[in-house]
Amino acid sequence: MQNFVFHNPTKLVFGKDTVERIGEYLKQNAIKKVLMIYGSGSIKKNGVYEKVVRSLHENGIMKVEVSGIRPNPVLSKVHEAIEVARKEQVDAILAVGGGSVVDSGKTIAAGYYYEGDIWDAFIGKYNIKKALPLFVVLTMSATGTEMNGNAVITNEDTTEKLSFGSKYVYPVVSIVDPTVQYSLPKDQAVYGAIDAISHVMEHYFDITGSDIIDSIDEGIIKTIISSTETIIQEPENYEARANLCLATTLALNGLTRMGTTGGDWSSHDLQHPLSALKPEVAHGAGLAAIFPAWMTYVKENISDKLIKFGRQVLNLGDEITPEYTIAELRRWYTSIGAPISLAQLGFLEEDIEKLTDIASKHAPFGTVKPLNHQDIKRIYEIAYNS
Amino acid sequence: MQNFVFHNPTKLVFGKDTVERIGEYLKQNAIKKVLMIYGSGSIKKNGVYEKVVRSLHENGIMKVEVSGIRPNPVLSKVHEAIEVARKEQVDAILAVGGGSVVDSGKTIAAGYYYEGDIWDAFIGKYNIKKALPLFVVLTMSATGTEMNGNAVITNEDTTEKLSFGSKYVYPVVSIVDPTVQYSLPKDQAVYGAIDAISHVMEHYFDITGSDIIDSIDEGIIKTIISSTETIIQEPENYEARANLCLATTLALNGLTRMGTTGGDWSSHDLQHPLSALKPEVAHGAGLAAIFPAWMTYVKENISDKLIKFGRQVLNLGDEITPEYTIAELRRWYTSIGAPISLAQLGFLEEDIEKLTDIASKHAPFGTVKPLNHQDIKRIYEIAYNS
Repeated sequence: MQNFVFHNPTKLVFGKDTVERIGEYLKQNAIKKVLMIYGSGSIKKNGVYEKVVRSLHENGIMKVEVSGIRPNPVLSKVHEAIEVARKEQVDAILAVGGGSVVDSGKTIAAGYYYEGDIWDAFIGKYNIKKALPLFVVLTMSATGTEMNGNAVITNEDTTEKLSFGSKYVYPVVSIVDPTVQYSLPKDQAVYGAIDAISHVMEHYFDITGSDIIDSIDEGIIKTIISSTETIIQEPENYEARANLCLATTLALNGLTRMGTTGGDWSSHDLQHPLSALKPEVAHGAGLAAIFPAWMTYVKENISDKLIKFGRQVLNLGDEITPEYTIAELRRWYTSIGAPISLAQLGFLEEDIEKLTDIASKHAPFGTVKPLNHQDIKRIYEIAYNS
Repeated sequence: MQNFVFHNPTKLVFGKDTVERIGEYLKQNAIKKVLMIYGSGSIKKNGVYEKVVRSLHENGIMKVEVSGIRPNPVLSKVHEAIEVARKEQVDAILAVGGGSVVDSGKTIAAGYYYEGDIWDAFIGKYNIKKALPLFVVLTMSATGTEMNGNAVITNEDTTEKLSFGSKYVYPVVSIVDPTVQYSLPKDQAVYGAIDAISHVMEHYFDITGSDIIDSIDEGIIKTIISSTETIIQEPENYEARANLCLATTLALNGLTRMGTTGGDWSSHDLQHPLSALKPEVAHGAGLAAIFPAWMTYVKENISDKLIKFGRQVLNLGDEITPEYTIAELRRWYTSIGAPISLAQLGFLEEDIEKLTDIASKHAPFGTVKPLNHQDIKRIYEIAYNS
């Protein structure tokens, strides 16, 4: 087990009918005016918008709004929102949405106090020193952003999709009400589940680790698998929704990172170019194609862990090989309707070169096996043909 | 799954050679003078005292000391330390020790600002509103107090052993260095392990719960079992120590509580009278005798969970009964050298009445089955004869 420091100050408010408490929590924190951000307007259809606005009103919280934040959120929208936040002199950001909205919220919160372009935080030119307090009402469980200090944003000008992490952008309060996710399309539940499984796997297949965190990782992934299967059949099964929501939060709130070197993260680094090139590719869908390809390429380095994963998570019995585990993971992804190859995602063979070039900009990356240009290309080839 | 709020602001600093960083963390938090509290002086033998004092010195932190805090810590010592803290006008409490020292530290920290007797917080007469910041260097993993807001203290005058919980007494920073625990006597490792297992079980056997937290609970207990077995053979096995230390912290930092009604806690309520009557009875030793007796008494209410526990935690195969699970848990406790009956702990049959009277003062308690005087007596009888 590696040494680590764990510090997660986010207050997680979890359960049925918790959305309407957002105003209370803002008031408790002496917030008077928020910039409320959200996406394409699905919160107006499922009732969340109305509940939030009523709660703000009842608690005397003023708001201004910026809407239209898209999946794979973009830097230009963040710039627009920072301008509004400054002009309106808000005290806090209130993000109502999924990972894209929350990640935009973190970036806006940090950008508010920075005189330069907040993109500098993504490319290592600025170390965040201050941010507006961020409050979250989560409407889609997947990325775990509701309880960590990370954000991923795409810069349309450079087609780079990059992340930053800062202790200043942990949400002060995150409200997770599983019932508001009843109406999510099946695809989003599936891709959210794969995203969360991938977060755990980035740590599980790290070169380090420990029995205690491995066993927690296994429990989280098993729960995501079983609750996703239930949700596909019964979208309004509260227990399954609640289990999936909590599992996705725990997948990336620092718990699964304890005692590791921080995770491998190659599969995420290899996935980001996919959505940079094709913004319509959901993050989880890309990971379904990329992660098993990465496993295949590095299987010699992680063979014991693949066997352990096959036994403890996939219940494959005694005669397990690394290849069998990978095949069964792909088989499960297929069974829930996820694509498992770049071809299924609509990429052409000639895209492999472009993807490799984008990913290689930040190479080498990965702890299990640091990947260079040649490795990256080979993994995309495996992912293309799977 | 029940609704819940989780908020744990403690910074956990975990790993080899972390003790010597305590001064740094105090300085980062603008602390200039601490009341350093510790126990009987074992920290002077294992080198922890010297490391802490050097780190304080190097970071320009002044200190005053109160030592001699005993296992099953007492209120009179807390009163003494509060007087010293006030007279010396310290900025923070630094607890260097195990659960008894840390729990005393929490009570001192809260008592510092309270004009009445801080025992009022334990009997529900005072709701804590403020406390000195608390910093911890943990030297024995067991109670999980290093990452929660709870404290247990014994009032010698009334022979009551009671607890309080407050968000104001979460440690600001807790340092857990598994290597300082190499020199612990075997008994303390064993009783610490049983204490931590019991914390998880108080939640696992709650009437509510969820797949996600059950699976994490199972992982924590399995890890405690395997790492304890290793430590008994190899006290200086770092991986086993680190796994045990982290598992005991996670057992009671709020994670295992998520989605439950808060845990049953009958076994703890039934154990406290044991050490009130016989202060030499270690908390974990008492729990080894009490918890299986409680399970036996309420087995009809928790039969499914007992079977699940037998399968997932104790690997008992397919033909599991509630009784078999309980017997195997007792067998494992015996195998690591723990007492499993009140008789083995030195109690006499006539003590059952006394224990029942002490415990009944706060009856009924428990969520699985609220226990009254008669129930309590029956459980002590089962525990006596096991």
